[in-house]
Amino acid sequence: MSLLVTGSIGIDTVITPFGHAEGVLGGSAVYFSLSASQFTPVRLVGAVGDDFPAEFRRVFDHKPIDLAGLEVRRGSRTFRWSGKFEGAMNEAETLNVHLNVLAEAPPEVPPAFLDSRLVFLANTHPALQKALIQKLHQPRLIVCDTMNHWIRTERDALLDVLSRVSGVILNDAEARELTEVINLIEAAEKLLALGPKFVIIKKGEHGCLLMSEQGPTSVPAFPTKDVRDPTGAGDSFAGGVMGYLGDCERIDGPALRRAVARGTVMASFAIEDFSVGRVQSLARGEVDARVGQYLRMLRLEE
Amino acid sequence: MSLLVTGSIGIDTVITPFGHAEGVLGGSAVYFSLSASQFTPVRLVGAVGDDFPAEFRRVFDHKPIDLAGLEVRRGSRTFRWSGKFEGAMNEAETLNVHLNVLAEAPPEVPPAFLDSRLVFLANTHPALQKALIQKLHQPRLIVCDTMNHWIRTERDALLDVLSRVSGVILNDAEARELTEVINLIEAAEKLLALGPKFVIIKKGEHGCLLMSEQGPTSVPAFPTKDVRDPTGAGDSFAGGVMGYLGDCERIDGPALRRAVARGTVMASFAIEDFSVGRVQSLARGEVDARVGQYLRMLRLEE
Repeated sequence: MSLLVTGSIGIDTVITPFGHAEGVLGGSAVYFSLSASQFTPVRLVGAVGDDFPAEFRRVFDHKPIDLAGLEVRRGSRTFRWSGKFEGAMNEAETLNVHLNVLAEAPPEVPPAFLDSRLVFLANTHPALQKALIQKLHQPRLIVCDTMNHWIRTERDALLDVLSRVSGVILNDAEARELTEVINLIEAAEKLLALGPKFVIIKKGEHGCLLMSEQGPTSVPAFPTKDVRDPTGAGDSFAGGVMGYLGDCERIDGPALRRAVARGTVMASFAIEDFSVGRVQSLARGEVDARVGQYLRMLRLEE
Repeated sequence: MSLLVTGSIGIDTVITPFGHAEGVLGGSAVYFSLSASQFTPVRLVGAVGDDFPAEFRRVFDHKPIDLAGLEVRRGSRTFRWSGKFEGAMNEAETLNVHLNVLAEAPPEVPPAFLDSRLVFLANTHPALQKALIQKLHQPRLIVCDTMNHWIRTERDALLDVLSRVSGVILNDAEARELTEVINLIEAAEKLLALGPKFVIIKKGEHGCLLMSEQGPTSVPAFPTKDVRDPTGAGDSFAGGVMGYLGDCERIDGPALRRAVARGTVMASFAIEDFSVGRVQSLARGEVDARVGQYLRMLRLEE
């Protein structure tokens, strides 16, 4: 099924205990697309400035990622973020943000993309998320992300978006802040009550919690020593989930549980290298092998 | 198989966001025994003072827990601990500790207990753990716990104990402090290199990591909203693991993975009420039902 993503495309500078990367490709829509494209074709919508390096565009070459919605805006500058991870690397400390083109008008969605069946609205202003939702012709599954900033400053607009989506994927701190509840099962239930049919709460190195009408499914992260840069793990997770669903006939509880396994595995690849180093060159066989390993690990009774 | 546990028996005062309990039964050996006794008979070794309330002893009535090693020491006072849990309740803040009888000579191990095949050495001075190991006639599986205090003050004695045990069960902060490594997979590998055949790192609400020669198994906690008091969760977990192993013909990798599921479920019961409120009155059918629920949750592919 057609899968549309809209989110940031950025130039990142990242420092971790394992090294640093300066001026590398990043952004939620980038990690999401590369990850989702392992499973299903992706339509990317996002804007960059005319400072966006040509070689960054080449990362998408020969991949089922349609860049018709990638707008290069003359006279604008690309979104830039720099951050630092320390210790257990569970949270980035933002050192610097320049919204640049993200603070301007949103990118145009190509008319040919408006029939997309699956849509992922990466973190952005809830008003823009709603505007896009209203343009879609026949969406089957709309899932959104958000961040603390919008929870604090645009709560009503965000609640409005949540009443219009099928699913929400967000991290534990965001879920707690939005629901004002500490226990994550309870937080997930409160989120469900706001409209979505499912909620996925990401917990970084501790895995995630999927909550739907069928109850909670809690799963661990894929255990690995190979962690160099956690940037993009959450978006790669979302890409794995949505990409897998895009390849499913039925989108129901069992499909969601299988999708969470794919998301978990894609996140485990993303953190193995700086920027998109690992996800951009990943063979489907590697993905399938690790999914198999992950599912076997969880079959405790065999 | 015969399962021996030695550890603390205490009188606790606990405050959590859900209430408080004053002067209630606690201690590592208590939680461990009640939990393990769901699966296999337990021999308990520990000392209390003559202030130990008679009704606390009655908790063990009609359970397969042999109290021949429970020493009531005249003129001594029972170990007392008071602590407080806040927020996500991942860590207790200790408000008060009176070691009392725990600071005196260790309890005698009844001669009839020295043929025990499985032994759990709950957290205590490493020298005492070693002394007990050396008394055992034909142990098949010795597993120990420890705490930050011994890591800091008795490192060499602790390393000596680790070279003599088959397994170690400890929490994430302890594993990190002992190995001086942040990544838990790496920490677990370093612990294996010290002697044990398996290591289980407990992560509170985030589940646990089992590491053995067969590689890592990471599992989530049983997802629940029903958390009133986390005291004793770790010891109930260890009791579930060891109790289940005590009922196994073979103690190998697959048995350990099944045991971890039982430990996880026993911990989820322990936190549902203050003190031993929930684990003391638990029917085996409730345990088996929740184990089934947990294993089904983890079968993502069905």
